[in-house]
Amino acid sequence: MPSKIETLIDMFPKSMDAALIISNENRRYFTGFVSSAGYLLAARGQAYLFVDSRYSEAAMKSAKDCIVVSYSKLSVSMSEIIKKHDIRSVMLEGSEFTINAARKMEELLNACGAQTIKNEELDAAIERMRIIKSADEIEKIIKAQRLAEDALEETLARLDTGMTERDVALDLEYSMRKHGADGVSFDLIVVSGAKTSMPHGVPGDERIKKGDFVLFDIGALFDGYHSDMTRTVAMGQIDTKQKFVYQTVLEAQKKGLEKVKAGVTCGDVDSAARSYINTAGFGGYFGHSTGHGVGLEIHEQPTVSPNNQKILRSGMVITVEPGIYLPGEFGVRIEDTVAVTEDGCINLCTMPKGLRIL
Amino acid sequence: MPSKIETLIDMFPKSMDAALIISNENRRYFTGFVSSAGYLLAARGQAYLFVDSRYSEAAMKSAKDCIVVSYSKLSVSMSEIIKKHDIRSVMLEGSEFTINAARKMEELLNACGAQTIKNEELDAAIERMRIIKSADEIEKIIKAQRLAEDALEETLARLDTGMTERDVALDLEYSMRKHGADGVSFDLIVVSGAKTSMPHGVPGDERIKKGDFVLFDIGALFDGYHSDMTRTVAMGQIDTKQKFVYQTVLEAQKKGLEKVKAGVTCGDVDSAARSYINTAGFGGYFGHSTGHGVGLEIHEQPTVSPNNQKILRSGMVITVEPGIYLPGEFGVRIEDTVAVTEDGCINLCTMPKGLRIL
Repeated sequence: MPSKIETLIDMFPKSMDAALIISNENRRYFTGFVSSAGYLLAARGQAYLFVDSRYSEAAMKSAKDCIVVSYSKLSVSMSEIIKKHDIRSVMLEGSEFTINAARKMEELLNACGAQTIKNEELDAAIERMRIIKSADEIEKIIKAQRLAEDALEETLARLDTGMTERDVALDLEYSMRKHGADGVSFDLIVVSGAKTSMPHGVPGDERIKKGDFVLFDIGALFDGYHSDMTRTVAMGQIDTKQKFVYQTVLEAQKKGLEKVKAGVTCGDVDSAARSYINTAGFGGYFGHSTGHGVGLEIHEQPTVSPNNQKILRSGMVITVEPGIYLPGEFGVRIEDTVAVTEDGCINLCTMPKGLRIL
Repeated sequence: MPSKIETLIDMFPKSMDAALIISNENRRYFTGFVSSAGYLLAARGQAYLFVDSRYSEAAMKSAKDCIVVSYSKLSVSMSEIIKKHDIRSVMLEGSEFTINAARKMEELLNACGAQTIKNEELDAAIERMRIIKSADEIEKIIKAQRLAEDALEETLARLDTGMTERDVALDLEYSMRKHGADGVSFDLIVVSGAKTSMPHGVPGDERIKKGDFVLFDIGALFDGYHSDMTRTVAMGQIDTKQKFVYQTVLEAQKKGLEKVKAGVTCGDVDSAARSYINTAGFGGYFGHSTGHGVGLEIHEQPTVSPNNQKILRSGMVITVEPGIYLPGEFGVRIEDTVAVTEDGCINLCTMPKGLRIL
């Protein structure tokens, strides 16, 4: 079986001799090696990972499918390889190289007779690969998800009125990391009361009150991979309207999940959840997309948005997260992350979704 | 007094009509408005901040020195302004625009008759401004620093043999945020024993032992600004060599601090610290630069490195952080962050630096 780098190289247009990859996620994806700097030059026949002295020992031990070059001067070391393989054209990773970095790299490459190509073909090729997750990748997302769920259960056991959103969010993050998460996938969202009507509210000094919804949108980072889940819980008794909205979102989320399988479009999944919310009379109160891909980044392709004709394929990992947000009143969102299969999906979240009254 | 944006515009080359700024730090620097997305178009006579619906309400309330434009389609809203001011040339922020983002912006601007300029002049102009901190900026760095110091004192009071580096680092971060830090300035460095010989070691499962040095390189984030400080403490009695190295680093750090004042070069400060270490016989064991600027980013200009002819000016904020690293044995680093003045510097760190035996 070809390595990931070989697969990528096979996707190059004929006129391209090499690709230069600099994003942390993509270097890690192709070589397995974790660092915050480095240049992966994927040439036909051989890939090279250029790292400085900080990383050379570790890279030589663990980077896969490439030759590690420890450089003190990048231009010298890279020139040697460019000349050795007679590389004339190098695609730059256009989603990562800044204008200034591209200019410097262009000067370096031009000086040894190679041209740079700055279009989106390389990004698109990498995206086509990364969008389909392997079993190993799905396992890491599950592990991240378990850390998030275990931490949330602990936090819910301690949750009480009078606590501030900020303190609850900090408690939750601490639990995740204490359990072994490498970090959080994003600034955790813990909002309560009227603030739950803001899809991306920031935890503040607001204190949790009786009768509030408390919304948790949380993710953990484990071995490079992210998780993503949202649960909305009730602090004590809630009113009939709150209950109705909760049940509507829950049912809409189930409709979305039921639609997921290889072959259907992202738009179909969005529509399944959205039309249920519309029919229930909350059409104007679900303003965001139904979901997004998750992997080495917390937001990846595909986007599960209205009318998106992108077709789901086995191995894609997406969220399904409809919500209803009533400004000035409250909001509810319920989110799972799932792996698409030929006849449905594997739900990577195991935390119950029925209305939970604390 | 001109606003920051006016000062920037006055620095434009005559041929430039406008600049387009997209980095979070620089949008915040010029408008005071915090967001994770947006386009600041600084044109001669008037600046515009383009934000999407997520940010429009907040931006209209709090963004300074610019007109806020809430867009649903950026190309439409930006075209109107480009045409209104007859803008023909726009400098892009080359340190932030990626190749792909620059291409899209170029298409947008070309479509309304404007050319993009992709050199480093805009970045250099912004750097010349940001490198000199105002009293308000220094105050924020001090506040961040106090949060870090208070947290470190708490952590040191709890520190004991048998704890893992990872748990200590997590405890420290939790304390900082509990006291009100918005986050950490970087992944906190807490390393012990032989690992202290690695300048950028990562906290691991190693347990702190009697006779160890424990090195803390820590920073807090407060209202957009970073702090940076390193302290090395001893767990119980340490040997004569450890004590000698500690005193050598402490004295070298003092030599560096004593050299800091407006008018001297960065290289002079580096040399003052480095030559003391060299003379003491540890010449090969101080492999990094003596310091760096701190502000909206944890690493900014200027770089306090050997032979750097950059001249310190009043209002620059730099670290002074020499170290001695003996591979396989131990390392010591001591770091303060200071604000340069006409006749010396203000040390923004107040935590004692004498050898501390816990």
